Amino acid sequence: MTGSGVPRDMLGRSALTRVPDARRLILDALSGIKPGSETVPLHMALDRISSADIIAGEDLPNCARSTMDGFAVVAADTFGASQSMPAYIDVAGEVLMGREPSGSVQRGTCFKIPTGGLVPPGADAVVMHEHTVEVDGRLIEVVKSVGAGSNVIKKGDDIRRQDVAVAAGKLLRPQELGLLAGLGIAEISVFRKISIGVLSTGDEVIDYTEPLVPGKIRNINSIVLAGACRRLGASVTDYGIVSDSEAAFFSTVEKAVAENDLVLFSGGSSVGVRDLGEQAIARLGDPGIIVHGVSLKPGKPVIIGLCGTTPVFGLPGHPVSAMVCFDLFVNPVIASISGRTDSEIQHPSVPARLMRNVNSAPGRLDVVRVSLSLENGEYRATPVLGKSGAISTLSRAHGYFLIAEDSQGCTSDETVEVILYQ
Amino acid sequence: MTGSGVPRDMLGRSALTRVPDARRLILDALSGIKPGSETVPLHMALDRISSADIIAGEDLPNCARSTMDGFAVVAADTFGASQSMPAYIDVAGEVLMGREPSGSVQRGTCFKIPTGGLVPPGADAVVMHEHTVEVDGRLIEVVKSVGAGSNVIKKGDDIRRQDVAVAAGKLLRPQELGLLAGLGIAEISVFRKISIGVLSTGDEVIDYTEPLVPGKIRNINSIVLAGACRRLGASVTDYGIVSDSEAAFFSTVEKAVAENDLVLFSGGSSVGVRDLGEQAIARLGDPGIIVHGVSLKPGKPVIIGLCGTTPVFGLPGHPVSAMVCFDLFVNPVIASISGRTDSEIQHPSVPARLMRNVNSAPGRLDVVRVSLSLENGEYRATPVLGKSGAISTLSRAHGYFLIAEDSQGCTSDETVEVILYQ
Repeated sequence: MTGSGVPRDMLGRSALTRVPDARRLILDALSGIKPGSETVPLHMALDRISSADIIAGEDLPNCARSTMDGFAVVAADTFGASQSMPAYIDVAGEVLMGREPSGSVQRGTCFKIPTGGLVPPGADAVVMHEHTVEVDGRLIEVVKSVGAGSNVIKKGDDIRRQDVAVAAGKLLRPQELGLLAGLGIAEISVFRKISIGVLSTGDEVIDYTEPLVPGKIRNINSIVLAGACRRLGASVTDYGIVSDSEAAFFSTVEKAVAENDLVLFSGGSSVGVRDLGEQAIARLGDPGIIVHGVSLKPGKPVIIGLCGTTPVFGLPGHPVSAMVCFDLFVNPVIASISGRTDSEIQHPSVPARLMRNVNSAPGRLDVVRVSLSLENGEYRATPVLGKSGAISTLSRAHGYFLIAEDSQGCTSDETVEVILYQ
Repeated sequence: MTGSGVPRDMLGRSALTRVPDARRLILDALSGIKPGSETVPLHMALDRISSADIIAGEDLPNCARSTMDGFAVVAADTFGASQSMPAYIDVAGEVLMGREPSGSVQRGTCFKIPTGGLVPPGADAVVMHEHTVEVDGRLIEVVKSVGAGSNVIKKGDDIRRQDVAVAAGKLLRPQELGLLAGLGIAEISVFRKISIGVLSTGDEVIDYTEPLVPGKIRNINSIVLAGACRRLGASVTDYGIVSDSEAAFFSTVEKAVAENDLVLFSGGSSVGVRDLGEQAIARLGDPGIIVHGVSLKPGKPVIIGLCGTTPVFGLPGHPVSAMVCFDLFVNPVIASISGRTDSEIQHPSVPARLMRNVNSAPGRLDVVRVSLSLENGEYRATPVLGKSGAISTLSRAHGYFLIAEDSQGCTSDETVEVILYQ
């Protein structure tokens, strides 16, 4: 019962797993697991994830267009033109928006053309309006030469037929929908949304809508975890607060595992409830427990398991610890099993000047929540202090930085990389 | 018709407005405009914006709790305790999770207590389990002294009654919902979602679901702008593609202004359609046109107006230019009229090493789209090249950086600040 310097897991059995190792263990175990796909209309596809490469069925643009208001010319007719030695070119016609040009451009002639107008056959460049002087309705002076292709977007310049317009596994932002609309793709195949079951346990926990009685605490984790999952595109089922009696807990976790792609339970900071969580994961199917306890503060008692192909996370009861474990472990697992393969820039971070010393015990990764202020273009990070479990510290934080396992802390004025809460 | 070095607006009349000035003009004109509010259940409030300060009605926690598994003691009983000189303390009881302690702690006695357990009256600290040795069920040795308050979160340590739990104008992230749940606040007042009307114009533009005929281009902007608005929490009505005949255009813009909190129209890269947009804004009510043309590339021809209290934006027809104007002007306006006051860290950016030279003409702000890669912990930004209007450049970009008006460009290996697309 005395302490010792050797890291041990929650049950005193073995060394704690390092955070990157824990993450790799569960991600490796899940590699290749993807949701099924479904077809949705393009206008319903915002923030969904493409389930297959989407191939351009045509060139974009599908014919050459002007990118300027001006005159469609044969570029060679302008060579050597200048303010003092303009080239004279006959205006043989005009391109109207939305219409095919009537006729073609010959040497020595040009067509007036608006931005976006189709470049007529024979023309290979557009002279900007600003580089011309109108002599009369039928003749212009060109005062600057243009090379072939100038001010023209050619057929296929944006994207070519048969090119991959959007790769599989990509989050569909507004701009991807725009590209697909430009290609006339009106419906696409996306991964179906993953479903996540959330439950809280602990005989002391009551729903936040119920009156508080002495000894009880309100359920904070369910609404925080459900919100964090929804923001990552998942559908969430809240299984409420489950008694930590063995029968009730096992049957609810079993039901949640059967009904969802991922299950989160939280609470059970007591050793008894942690045992229960571990037993539930082990009993529900192989491979069972993957990680039990990590060298992390806060968040050490996290349990990560896999029941068949369904990841199950036992998160600490303290809301702050639960959120730290969510960010470090659950978030990348959700990205992976949602089918995302574009997640390299998923967690934006900013460098910031640390405003006070922060100590850290070697041998564990420390997650330090900070509030940010912007002074003269520089971010300043002030650690948000508070007792373990203080949910207000999360609300006051703009993000967090990490103190590596082998570090004893960070000093004031040091630059730290702050991972931003969205 | 010849060019000149002097910046002029689209109609050749006056100097272009600088980007920060344009933004300030419209934001100042809108200051104080907020949506109405509505009451929603807490579990429906994710990503909504608080419309009033939310006050804590009680202390959180509402009584002192242990943050460790261990023994609740009178701290003075442990003073001087060490491995070689342990303090001996009688175990007088046990705190059970979710229950009020039965009895109180006297000098020389302690209660066994789990993490989260209520600290019994008389006790002022908790000794961690790891710093004790059980002699028998009724007696422990304490091998490390604790100060008063150690391993205890006191009543109100997280948040105090009457404190502002969440300020007005704050985006409700999962952690804010958690804090409010912890305080037992089951419904809150939020700003109602703003409504945005989107329309495209131009006789060359057709719906992307229609077959392409020569001379026409598919409507890209509506789906991009609608998606970008939805991601900022707005409700969007798509008014489709409106003919650029005066009667049709005016009546649709008028309807959109009447029905929405903000209106975006795009298209009309031709001078005639730009005139039409300007006239529509001027005709629909004072103060009318606020900005017409900015020193920006791409995005110069943007029109910003205000019809009564409804901002109306005429965006360029090129999708890339439209998106740049959306990011620089529409995004902050949406944040402002949605009631947000917490937007200082809204646009996360990262420093990145520029991978090639980029030239810029002095006298305008240049927006350069880049793709990012992460090499040895350093971001590298490669400009995404492409002709003006190429939507694929937006899809290949992770974000953009700005080249200031007074700069002639950036050089390879220079560090640039890349504002990330979400």
